[in-house]
Amino acid sequence: MERSHPAVHPVAVPPQFDNQPPPNLRMKDLPGSPGTLGGLALRVGQFGFAIIAFGVMVAMTDFSTVTAFCYLVAAMVLQCLWSISLAMIDLYALLTRRSLRNSLLVGIFVVGDGVTSTLTLAAACATAGITVFIDNDLGKCGPSHCAKYEAAAAMAFLSWVLIQLSFLFSFYLLATR
Amino acid sequence: MERSHPAVHPVAVPPQFDNQPPPNLRMKDLPGSPGTLGGLALRVGQFGFAIIAFGVMVAMTDFSTVTAFCYLVAAMVLQCLWSISLAMIDLYALLTRRSLRNSLLVGIFVVGDGVTSTLTLAAACATAGITVFIDNDLGKCGPSHCAKYEAAAAMAFLSWVLIQLSFLFSFYLLATR
Repeated sequence: MERSHPAVHPVAVPPQFDNQPPPNLRMKDLPGSPGTLGGLALRVGQFGFAIIAFGVMVAMTDFSTVTAFCYLVAAMVLQCLWSISLAMIDLYALLTRRSLRNSLLVGIFVVGDGVTSTLTLAAACATAGITVFIDNDLGKCGPSHCAKYEAAAAMAFLSWVLIQLSFLFSFYLLATR
Repeated sequence: MERSHPAVHPVAVPPQFDNQPPPNLRMKDLPGSPGTLGGLALRVGQFGFAIIAFGVMVAMTDFSTVTAFCYLVAAMVLQCLWSISLAMIDLYALLTRRSLRNSLLVGIFVVGDGVTSTLTLAAACATAGITVFIDNDLGKCGPSHCAKYEAAAAMAFLSWVLIQLSFLFSFYLLATR
């Protein structure tokens, strides 16, 4: 009886990169993404600037006479609530060493950050526009009134810069998941 | 003389997926990304809304008395120039069937779209805020004046929606390249 000899050809095996993390985990170390220390710092910064803007605004007794100033106060309340909620989620993830790379969760972060950042920028720009209008164009600014409104607009703008960074990190995380 | 027989072990070879496109080409068909018909339509829409906002604004003789209205005109000029330039690049890419998936090129699109969309939203919000301030809070709006300013702000806002979409598509393309 003839025995068949199976032909065995050596083939080139692609390297397995056992020492490197798989590519879908590379975002984990990106500082600023949700669930990292950088992400928590961004949230705390957003909350801090937003609460300063809110405080400066409500300290002015006549802010409610201008629609856009009331809108800034409302936007800052929303910004504070959103940022402190996300800061708590980040803190929980850091303490329990959990990952926030769930698609649904990151999708909610992206939508929430996008909406909040748009509202904050809109409120900051409307406030800044009206302050410049009253101060430069009408010349009817009370003593140190406009400086305080400008300070509130600047704080809201700084808060927007930080939430925009959070939005970009979350969106990047969602795109590369 | 003893001849050495090299030991050959058959190994499992990972499948090559010859029939599937490589993952870095999956974005090519996403409508709205640079170099596609959807991307071109977004650019034309941005340009159209921006030029209408510009036209409505400069048709008002007294727009230059308000700083924010001058800023809206400047922002709309920048928006028109950026959108028409990108529309031409998209058209060139479509006609010559070239891909715009070059990292440097998409990076420039992302930065340009981000800056232009921020300036456009800021100008639209400042204009809207001042119009509401003059109309509702001061009650000093000339006949059909505020309606035209509101129309310009609305057109600028629609232009922002479209450029924001372009920005998100370009950023997604950059993140998944």
